[in-house]
Amino acid sequence: VSGMGGSAIGGDLLSDLLVDQVEVPIITCRGYHLPSYVREGALVFTISYSGNTEETLSTFLEALKRKCMVIAITSGGRLAYLCRKLKVPILDVPEGMVPRAALPYLFIPLIILAERFNVAKGLREQVKAAVSLLMAMRDELGPDVPEEENRAKELASRIMGTVPVVYGFGHLRAVAYRLKTQFNENSKVPSFYNCIPDLNHDEIVGWEGEEALTKGFSVIFLRSPREGPEVKARIELTKQIIAGKVARILEIRARGSSRLEEMFSVLYVGEVASLYLALMRGVDPSVTPSIDMVKHGMEKLKLASRIEEHALSLMP
Amino acid sequence: VSGMGGSAIGGDLLSDLLVDQVEVPIITCRGYHLPSYVREGALVFTISYSGNTEETLSTFLEALKRKCMVIAITSGGRLAYLCRKLKVPILDVPEGMVPRAALPYLFIPLIILAERFNVAKGLREQVKAAVSLLMAMRDELGPDVPEEENRAKELASRIMGTVPVVYGFGHLRAVAYRLKTQFNENSKVPSFYNCIPDLNHDEIVGWEGEEALTKGFSVIFLRSPREGPEVKARIELTKQIIAGKVARILEIRARGSSRLEEMFSVLYVGEVASLYLALMRGVDPSVTPSIDMVKHGMEKLKLASRIEEHALSLMP
Repeated sequence: VSGMGGSAIGGDLLSDLLVDQVEVPIITCRGYHLPSYVREGALVFTISYSGNTEETLSTFLEALKRKCMVIAITSGGRLAYLCRKLKVPILDVPEGMVPRAALPYLFIPLIILAERFNVAKGLREQVKAAVSLLMAMRDELGPDVPEEENRAKELASRIMGTVPVVYGFGHLRAVAYRLKTQFNENSKVPSFYNCIPDLNHDEIVGWEGEEALTKGFSVIFLRSPREGPEVKARIELTKQIIAGKVARILEIRARGSSRLEEMFSVLYVGEVASLYLALMRGVDPSVTPSIDMVKHGMEKLKLASRIEEHALSLMP
Repeated sequence: VSGMGGSAIGGDLLSDLLVDQVEVPIITCRGYHLPSYVREGALVFTISYSGNTEETLSTFLEALKRKCMVIAITSGGRLAYLCRKLKVPILDVPEGMVPRAALPYLFIPLIILAERFNVAKGLREQVKAAVSLLMAMRDELGPDVPEEENRAKELASRIMGTVPVVYGFGHLRAVAYRLKTQFNENSKVPSFYNCIPDLNHDEIVGWEGEEALTKGFSVIFLRSPREGPEVKARIELTKQIIAGKVARILEIRARGSSRLEEMFSVLYVGEVASLYLALMRGVDPSVTPSIDMVKHGMEKLKLASRIEEHALSLMP
């Protein structure tokens, strides 16, 4: 799965979701180049919401040249144009959204196709159940529900003024990463993530630092009924060790009966919290000036149009 | 490559080193379980410096049950004991070091074996050249060399009082991650990492936050003569955007002519800087009380001894 930012995270989520059932690795590739082992016979999902992400266009060209099987997911742009010219299958996504808000359009097709390609089973039912769960949660987290009864508002208000660090395990690893990026993009705050049990082998020592360094952080643990006794014990030990060092220790608890429902339920609470945090901080969650500045600066190199020319030259 | 912390990073470094030449993915697995696609025919390196890491013992058992080809790298412990009983090949590493200081013993064998298994070529020469380069650098970074001429001391003193965030690209991704963990473990400070160009799609927006949130961080860019014009432009744009928001912007420049030399030269400067930072902060870089507390807490669950029993029951 090749993409950047909100277009790439679907690959990580799919990999977490299917880690116990797939027979081939699902690799997310962020950057200009595909690894050398992606060759003829590999299935490459090229995902760019805008269709103009230059890194993704670059890997798209590489995938074509290596004769991989390519499927594009995009709302338009150069990628859609090239796919039509070169007869590459394309999944159309509605235009006009903030790219990161298009996650369902970018991720759900991967799940459906995984089932269609016999990579996994029973996922359609999980998607339906997850949608029902989110519909119910929408009412609980809405703007009219006061903070005392609204988990997302409560989270935002406890995170306010701190740097959130999100810790996930197992099927909630990519979810932790996604929430970190949502705090960055929506709330405009520094934010980081890590995974249990990995962080018990290094990052945990960092919280031994003096208060001036640690007191500005809040740590959010993503919890699940699927935690084994080992993971549960590690989380509790970690909480004990960092208590008093960081500003706040928070939790988001997964709901639902399938892995996918759990992933979506945590994502939903965390993403809505990142929006409330933006509003509390008085910033607009829908714009990302720094990303626009980088994109604008990169246009001078004209990489995307050079890639487009090169790709068109492959036409038979 | 299965391992945790300092034992796992060799897998990431190998993957970065060979990303342009291997025909199979090199996956690092941190945690209790191997992904489902690791099956009979897979080559699994089980790495635990102490030999008693419970997550790694758990994946070792899984690899045996799935009839993978297993090679262990360890200094002793339960892993060495089990390998001898079960006739699993083992690479002995000298005992008595701090696990993270054993990186050369845990990483170099992976390189040598990659060449032996015909996964890659010309690596032995790169190792030799890297060793010569590090010998020369040792004199430049030693404790007798004053700060004005000592890049590691200078870095440590500029990081002092801040939370270091390390940004790498390409073959310096795992290097960035390793340095983040060395600041955690050696210097006892929170520290994070990310990669170019990924971070241009999300994390960069976080630095728009108000000074109270961003001013406590220093950002260290890992630079290389191998940067393409796109990467160079991205780094410069990123520096412009975050300048004035973070406390300090620092760089570590790679040296040497091969990828491996570049990786080692950056690692060396950064790792030595993490030691100097520990000394400046008045903490002992060789101990990690938080990790010991977690290990001690986990012993109650007796997971490692249950795994050992189970593994021994596989004896023919």
